[in-house]
Formats: sequence, structure tokens, C-alpha cells
Amino acid sequence: MNEPQRSRRPGGRSARVGAQVHQAVTGLINERGYGNFTVGEVAARAGVADSSVYRRWGSLEALLSDVALTRLNAQSPMPDTGSLDGDLRTYAAAVAREITGPDGLALLRLAFALAGTGDQGVQARDALRDERTRQLRSMLDRARERGEHPPDALDFLDHVLAPMYIRVLFGMGLSPEYVDELVDRLL
Amino acid sequence: MNEPQRSRRPGGRSARVGAQVHQAVTGLINERGYGNFTVGEVAARAGVADSSVYRRWGSLEALLSDVALTRLNAQSPMPDTGSLDGDLRTYAAAVAREITGPDGLALLRLAFALAGTGDQGVQARDALRDERTRQLRSMLDRARERGEHPPDALDFLDHVLAPMYIRVLFGMGLSPEYVDELVDRLL
Repeated sequence: MNEPQRSRRPGGRSARVGAQVHQAVTGLINERGYGNFTVGEVAARAGVADSSVYRRWGSLEALLSDVALTRLNAQSPMPDTGSLDGDLRTYAAAVAREITGPDGLALLRLAFALAGTGDQGVQARDALRDERTRQLRSMLDRARERGEHPPDALDFLDHVLAPMYIRVLFGMGLSPEYVDELVDRLL
Repeated sequence: MNEPQRSRRPGGRSARVGAQVHQAVTGLINERGYGNFTVGEVAARAGVADSSVYRRWGSLEALLSDVALTRLNAQSPMPDTGSLDGDLRTYAAAVAREITGPDGLALLRLAFALAGTGDQGVQARDALRDERTRQLRSMLDRARERGEHPPDALDFLDHVLAPMYIRVLFGMGLSPEYVDELVDRLL
């Protein structure tokens, strides 16, 4: 995740390869679930050489993490509603929708499974976590700049995101009222 | 998990088979990780027939869940210290030790992975969750009977257990001070 955009030009060959590989991974995830395929299968479906995938991502774990991050950013981008209250509620609701959606649990499981796949998996998980934390901090910093008093990013993780994740993982469901209550309680 | 003790007499053949099968599962988990073996392999190692395993547990998922619950109950039984404060702190500390220990993450991942293995996996995960919730509620009921004012079991899950689980799953570590703070905040 270090400077992932480094040598990519929009519309260039690098961007095209990136999109083809992401699409191949998404297709394989939909068909087989996370983790049940190799870099060779991804490359074959994307119509690129294995070496192109390894050169760009370094490992299957880093590629999966990159795809997961891209999907998270597309499905639940950090909101910018102009108020702390609005941002936190919008973000919490988006995460709730995402993790209760058709492949949300798979995405969550991917992040956790990555940690069980050796050093490269751990690095990929950490990169995913750090990038999302960075985005959350930026959102809270904007509130602070407006003169609001945002909670710490880790408190938001501990007392809003963590309960939602655990309830979904344990099959307990999430209602919009419950998600709002978590935010109320934190604020 | 319905009446798991139904036809077992301590020291009888049924108890012996149960212990042999649990030991076989633990051995296979240590060697290969959760999920990377079959009922046939468990039965062979335990020296029992496949049909004995299926008759007693119904599925590999239910067996794994039973082993997980037995280990959880052995490693972090619900405490009974005589005070709510003592019980919650002792339990939170035991869970923290367990999930940061050598196979704690594997245990946590098992519970989540079970949910991805179809109906039997979902039933096994729900049984594990319900049994631990029942135990937690008993502990909180004892406090209420002593005239204390315990939190709701779900609040303990959301604001003490969930943050610990998520921090471990995301590789953020747990300090005893942090765990104590979570309990302080809830009380």
C-alpha cells in the first residue's frame, strides 16, 4: 500500500491492467469465495502475466487487501456532510449496510483471514487497517477544524465499529436504531 | 448443543469416546489449523467409527463448536469472585489472555469461519454464542441477587468483548490497562 498510485497514469496501460486484475479477483471471489484461488488463476483470467501481478502487488494477500480497500472505499467512502454528527451517523450507517450486505461478511472475514496467512497477510491486513484509520482521522480532523469536538478515532473503532462487526460475525443482525444508539452513546 | 450430556455417564464408554474425539480434534487443529481436516480423519485418530462421530455431533461444524466451547470453558470459565466489579474484571482479563494466547486467534477465527460453512456451521456458531451468553447472564444475575446493578449482557459484549476481539483481529494488541479501562467505562 505504499504509494500504490506511483507509476499509474489514468487511462494508461498500468490503469488498464489494474482494472482487469481487480475485475478478475472480484469474479473469482464471487464464484469461489475469498482465498480459494491463486495468483496464476487471477493472471490468466485478467489476461496478464503472473509476473505483472507479483511485480505490482508482491503477493496474493496484498492484492486481496488492495481489492478489499478499493471496494470499501467505493461502498462506504468517508462522508463529508459538514457536521460531526452527520459524518459519524452517515459513516456508521454505510458500514452497517456494507457488512450486512451480500459480500460484506466475506470482506470482513478476508481482513481477519489475511492475518492467518503469514507475514504478507499480516502486512496486507495492517495496510488495510491503517488506510481506513487514516481516512477516519481525516474526517475527525475536519470536525475539529470546524470547532467541533470529535471523539478519538480509536474510541469510534472500539464503541461503534467493533460492536457492529461482532454482532454481524455472531449472526445477531443490526437495526438502524441500534447503530444510531451506538453513535449517540459515543457522542 | 441440545442436552449434550444426555446419555453420558462420567467414566463410561460415552465419556471415553468424547475425550478421545476431543483430543483428536485438538491434535489436528494444532497440526493443520481449524477446518483443514475431515470427520473421517478425526474418527481414525480417535480410534472410533465415523458413524459414532456423526451420531453424537451431527456434523464436523458442531464437533468443532463443541471443542471450542469446552476449551473456552476450561480456559476462561465465568468467575464467581463475590462482587460484580471482580467478576467483570476477572472475566475480561481471562478473555484477553485467551485471545492473545497461542491459539486464541484461531479459536476466534473458528467461531467466525463456522458461519461461512452453511446451515450446520451457522447452528454451531449460534450454539457457541448462546451458551457463552447464558453463562454471562448467570454471572450478572448473581450480582443482581446480591443487590448490585449489573450492566446488560449485550452491553458487556458490545463495549468490552467486541473492542478486545476487534483489536486482536486487527493486530493492535491488548494491555491490561486498556482492558481495565473498558470495564471502568462500562461500570
